[in-house]
Amino acid sequence: MATLHHYPLCPHSRFIRLALGEFGLDATLVEERVWERRREFLELNPAGTTPVLREDSGLVIPGPGPIAEYLDETRGLALAERRLLPEGPGGRIEVRRLLDWFNIKFNEEITAPLVLEKVMKRFMSRDEGGGPPEMSAIRAARGNVRYHLRYIAWLTAKRNWLAGDNLSYADLAAAAHLSCVDYLGDVPWDEDEAARAWYARIKSRPSFRPLLSDRIPGMAPSAHYDDLDF
Amino acid sequence: MATLHHYPLCPHSRFIRLALGEFGLDATLVEERVWERRREFLELNPAGTTPVLREDSGLVIPGPGPIAEYLDETRGLALAERRLLPEGPGGRIEVRRLLDWFNIKFNEEITAPLVLEKVMKRFMSRDEGGGPPEMSAIRAARGNVRYHLRYIAWLTAKRNWLAGDNLSYADLAAAAHLSCVDYLGDVPWDEDEAARAWYARIKSRPSFRPLLSDRIPGMAPSAHYDDLDF
Repeated sequence: MATLHHYPLCPHSRFIRLALGEFGLDATLVEERVWERRREFLELNPAGTTPVLREDSGLVIPGPGPIAEYLDETRGLALAERRLLPEGPGGRIEVRRLLDWFNIKFNEEITAPLVLEKVMKRFMSRDEGGGPPEMSAIRAARGNVRYHLRYIAWLTAKRNWLAGDNLSYADLAAAAHLSCVDYLGDVPWDEDEAARAWYARIKSRPSFRPLLSDRIPGMAPSAHYDDLDF
Repeated sequence: MATLHHYPLCPHSRFIRLALGEFGLDATLVEERVWERRREFLELNPAGTTPVLREDSGLVIPGPGPIAEYLDETRGLALAERRLLPEGPGGRIEVRRLLDWFNIKFNEEITAPLVLEKVMKRFMSRDEGGGPPEMSAIRAARGNVRYHLRYIAWLTAKRNWLAGDNLSYADLAAAAHLSCVDYLGDVPWDEDEAARAWYARIKSRPSFRPLLSDRIPGMAPSAHYDDLDF
């Protein structure tokens, strides 16, 4: 079985866990506390970031983008009309554009600061950058969630899923980031019914279940985190 | 002819200009001052970032990663053994890993802060975030250049080009970022002969020439910027 080096509240790890689920692939999960910079992990990925997928063959694929492209290239055709990176150039461009939107922009503006300040800093030593959270960073990130929800609502007003008729990597990435923010209780679902309805659809997929049972030690998720009818 | 919306010292724009050059494709360059958030530009790319490639057909491709994948998918085979994203899975993984290394990690640690502080802030209004540069950000970025040069030297000690035997997107991305930093005079070339030798090889390619004639108004490049024998 393949191995996925991940961190439970790493949105990029969650994106790949969702993708593996949609492909019907099992992987052994190995938790990496990236701030500890474990030597064997840095040999797999010198950038020191999660996720890293390791195939049985020994092939190592680091990073959400490279893993998503690799899965599409090696197993995409088997999904037929459920392929997560669609066949035509226009569809592929739109999915990749939205992947960057969530994995870069949403991440920088929301997920990365929230997870660093509220979660990782609790577990990091002083030398690793640990300490009390910076409230200004948390407030800024919370403010940014709103316009991303509106963007999701705008996309789903025109389309069945974020990038078009079918579920794609774009939905999985968006849901992965939102699921981290939702664990922390920082998604104002009651302010955007269309975004909530889209998230409810993806949250009820079997691939999402393992994410809903993740727990960070000493840090319970928001009350509605694993509720499919939130 | 295709159109490329770019900014002269945007490393991601330079990466795509180099790629277009290697593909032998001409494009009309349109300069975007992204901080002005021009409405027509935001319609092409809601993320408001450069580069954006627009094909004659009207097809719009935003972002360095999506453009690189698109060019490979539509014109990659024509390059035959000069293909910039190699054929086999292992080669593709390594090129994409290094693309993320330079376009995400190097960018965050070096290019983005240096270009923002030293260049963009001179042209931005107060409301847009303009003002005097933050010297602490510049110092941190300058310090980070060194270990990236060592990483390039380490890779080229084992390989002809960064990702393997052949020139690839990895070299173009690395060179694009370094060329921005070099314009600003912040690459300590004399500290790393192997990295310098690799850069000299890529700098002498015809695809690199247009970058060497870029000039930012009121901001001359470093003395050796366009010198092939630096």
